[in-house]
This record gives sequence, C-alpha cells and structure tokens, in this order.
Amino acid sequence: MENTRYDIAIIGSGPAGLSAAINAKVRNKNIIVFGIQELSNKIIKAPKINNYLGFYDITGIELRDRFKEHIENLGISITFERINEVYAMGDYFALDVNGKMYESKTIILATGIEYTKPLKGEEKFLGKGVGYCATCDAPLYKGKTVTIIGYNKEAEDDANYVSELAKTTYYVPMYKKELALNENIKILNDRVVEIQGTDKVDKVVFENNEIATDGVFVLKDSVSPTQLVPGLEMENNHIKVNLDMKTNIKGCFAAGDCTGKPYQYIKSAGQGQVAALNAVTYLDSMVKLS
Amino acid sequence: MENTRYDIAIIGSGPAGLSAAINAKVRNKNIIVFGIQELSNKIIKAPKINNYLGFYDITGIELRDRFKEHIENLGISITFERINEVYAMGDYFALDVNGKMYESKTIILATGIEYTKPLKGEEKFLGKGVGYCATCDAPLYKGKTVTIIGYNKEAEDDANYVSELAKTTYYVPMYKKELALNENIKILNDRVVEIQGTDKVDKVVFENNEIATDGVFVLKDSVSPTQLVPGLEMENNHIKVNLDMKTNIKGCFAAGDCTGKPYQYIKSAGQGQVAALNAVTYLDSMVKLS
Repeated sequence: MENTRYDIAIIGSGPAGLSAAINAKVRNKNIIVFGIQELSNKIIKAPKINNYLGFYDITGIELRDRFKEHIENLGISITFERINEVYAMGDYFALDVNGKMYESKTIILATGIEYTKPLKGEEKFLGKGVGYCATCDAPLYKGKTVTIIGYNKEAEDDANYVSELAKTTYYVPMYKKELALNENIKILNDRVVEIQGTDKVDKVVFENNEIATDGVFVLKDSVSPTQLVPGLEMENNHIKVNLDMKTNIKGCFAAGDCTGKPYQYIKSAGQGQVAALNAVTYLDSMVKLS
Repeated sequence: MENTRYDIAIIGSGPAGLSAAINAKVRNKNIIVFGIQELSNKIIKAPKINNYLGFYDITGIELRDRFKEHIENLGISITFERINEVYAMGDYFALDVNGKMYESKTIILATGIEYTKPLKGEEKFLGKGVGYCATCDAPLYKGKTVTIIGYNKEAEDDANYVSELAKTTYYVPMYKKELALNENIKILNDRVVEIQGTDKVDKVVFENNEIATDGVFVLKDSVSPTQLVPGLEMENNHIKVNLDMKTNIKGCFAAGDCTGKPYQYIKSAGQGQVAALNAVTYLDSMVKLS
C-alpha cells in the first residue's frame, strides 16, 4: 500500500473536529479524521441544547445527527482508530496507531477534555507498569497478569485482545453496561482505591480486595494532550493556543474543550473552523517555500 | 420613564451578536441588542453556506431565518437604533443614541467589519465638517449646506431628517436601489473623488462636478470601534481581544469579524458565546464585590 501523506489529520470527532473537517474539505484538502462511531460521547448525553445558534430546543442526539448529515453530504468519513502518539518530524507528523503509522503535514487536536480524575498511583506508575494503550503494550505481558481499568465499551475489545496473550486478565468496568468479554477474563466489580508498587506496579488495591498484577491499563475516552503529542505546551491543564488556534508546535493546531473553558459546542465549532483555515494557510505557505 | 440599567448591551445583530444574546438570555441576564431589521447585511448576501456545522447547503437568507427563529423562541427582540458612542463610566457604560442614553453594566461589541475604504479626505476632516452621525449633528447645520454620502437605505432617513433643518441637502447614494427622499433633497449620482477644505470641509469633488458644502456626513453600515468606544485598544485594525473575548476595557467584550480574521459565521457565533459567558462571569463577580 502506498503511504498517503494527508494535508490535515484531525484527532477528534466532536464539534471542534467536525467543524475543522468540513472547513478543510470545503477548501479541497486531503484530510483524515480520527474519531468514534457516536461522534461525541458528550453531545449525545445532552438532553436539550438551546445555545447553539440556529438550533432552538434540540436534543444532543438530534444535533449530533445534523452534524453527521453534514459531514456525509461532504463525503467525510471518520476513521475509527485511536492515536497513541504523534511525532513531529519537521515538515510532517507521524501518527502511531498501534504500530501502524499515518502521515500528515498538519494536525488539529480536537480531543476534548478528560473529565475523570487520575486514579491514585496512576500518574506515579505511568510507564512503570501503568499504560494507556493496551494493544500497543500487550506483548510485554505475555504469560503475565494484567489488570484493565476500562471507562467505556471500547476498552472491552482491548481487554479481549490482551487476554489472548496474558496469563491472567482482570477487567474493572468503570461504567454500568452489559459486558462482552472473553470467558477467561475475570471481572472485578469493586472501587479502585490505589495502584501500588515500589519501582514498578505490583498490585491494585480495591475497597474490598486487592490483586497482584504485573501491569495496569487505564483506558479512558482520551489521553492527556502532552502524552499524545510530546513537547506540546500546556496552560492551566489545557493546550496553550493563540487566537489562530496555533499551539507551540509548528503545523499543530488545537480546538475545542482541549484548549480551555467554556466547554461549549458552538465555541468548539468556531475554533475548529479557525484551526482548519489556519492549517490551510500554513499548507499554502509550505507549497510556496518548496 | 425609569432608567433600566441592563446587564449586557450587545451592539450588532450578526452571528456574533445573536449568539451572545441567546447565551446571555439562557443565563437569565437582562439584555438589549442593538441591530438592524435584516439582522446581518452580510449574511443575507451569501448565496450558499457550507461550513456552518449542522447546516449543509443553506442560503444566507435561510440561515438568517434560522437565527431569527432562534432568538424569537427565546423572546429576544432587536432594538433598531444606532449607537453613536459608548462611554465607560466605571462600573457601567452609557450608550448614546442620538442624545438618548442607555445604561448597561457590560457591553459586547459585535459590530462586524467595515469593508468600505475611507474616502479621500474623510479621515483628515473627521470632526472638522465630516461626521458619521447625521441625526446627532444635524442641528449644527441649520440653514447651511450639507452633503450626505449614504452607503445604505437607512441613510435616506437621516438625509430626510437633515433636509428639514439644512438650507440645501445633497444626497450621494453609494448603492443601487430606488431612493425614498424628500423632494427638496438634491441627488448626485456621481463618483466621489475627494472631500476637500482648509481648516474644515468646504467642498466635495466628484468625477464630473464639485459642490460647495458646510458639512459632509458619511453614513456606512458601521463606524470604527475606536470611534464607538474611545480608548479601545486595536491591533492590526481589529479590536484587540484575548481568548476570553475581553478587550482592554473592563466589562467590555468583543466578538466576530470586528476582532479579526477569518471572517466566518460560526467562528463569530462561537466567539459571541464566549463573550457572553465571560460577561456573565464578570457580572457575577460584580455582585460578590458589592
């Protein structure tokens, strides 16, 4: 397969990512959008939205459907893959999806905001037995014991994959839905108190239990932007941007909740548009230089 | 009549102003929106809009109608008056409309951008015979000769008013529409070359003609923000704002085209939302202090 180098890779399929996508598409750019089937887990939970100009008294699901219709009309599809890490390579970016690499001249981060607080010990042991990408690091745990703390249904697929390599796999669901897990996975319905260890993780302590484990995967809706893009400058826990939605990394833009409050749909859509249009300007300047 | 002090006065009824209005209204603020019947002269001229997320392949007029429906559903009406000047009074603003004063604790400038270049001599003689508010300054020209250079239909009302006081009134239409002017107004269908004078204006030079005049009113869709709000800080001909849409004046916010490029609808709507929500936060902090 020939390796396509996209003009713009958009990470996120909420209002910021989709608005960036339609604006880039209208400008005839070759884009790829990484996101989820539901487009936005946040918007579909909104019972009623009154402050997105043009739509009065609309439900989150209805608004999501309008977004869906819009991108479909423009021939935009979503790639249902999760980026593990983005490497700035100078005049392009390499996006790592479980070992598979995508290339893009610019990126727009529209990853939303992670509302869940880190677990006790999570940050301390990150890279020392705690990881965010089960499918990337699973081979390290062949024949060992792995605990997966899953915040959404997608985490179950990862758990199933890990269970084929690990000796013992524990799954801790952080949500209330029916689980679709391999039979050899042990489900722990208990509250996580702390991830513990010395140099590296050796156990997870629960309210009513504790288990010895070699590794812990914490699988949330999104990982922190600095983990996704090493070297990205932050400010008050958000990606630092200017009014052009530029980050400190050349060719890397950001939009939406990940850039700061207020967390609002049309603000995100507006920023997505600004990010895309400035990415287009940046791409045009690259052409002139080359 | 009791003098209402509004929470938020919004100047402009384009996407930025309307988005600010619905967000302020949803937060139960007492607002006043100054604008025009058409809501936005720019949007109604757009043949097709494809990059306002949620609306695919919509005309400018259709989108304007959706905006209209939205504000009407929230009980927001537009005040069809033009602000001449805004005075920062410390903990509130005074808005001068032809001598009538409105008061508001905060203001949001959503005035759009003036695309028309100043005429030759316009800026040189501003305040020296050139003015932007015919109804304010008309009394100065009682029994004199006044030339009105009108960029829109609304300017005709001003011309009619002036013609009741002035000895001679000339009207120079800068657009192509049927005119509704008093019979005593002389219409000049000619291209303005320059406004001339020595200490103050004494004539207007046209391509094929020239006329002696005591005063010239240039009536455009919007005046420059620094004329509207003295002391307002600008940057590259736009109102300088930060990511919270705050200007350099406390309690004064700005959103939309007047804050800079790109000139786009959903970007303006997003900024209007941010301006309104930060105005709400500012109002809440005032309450705590008092």
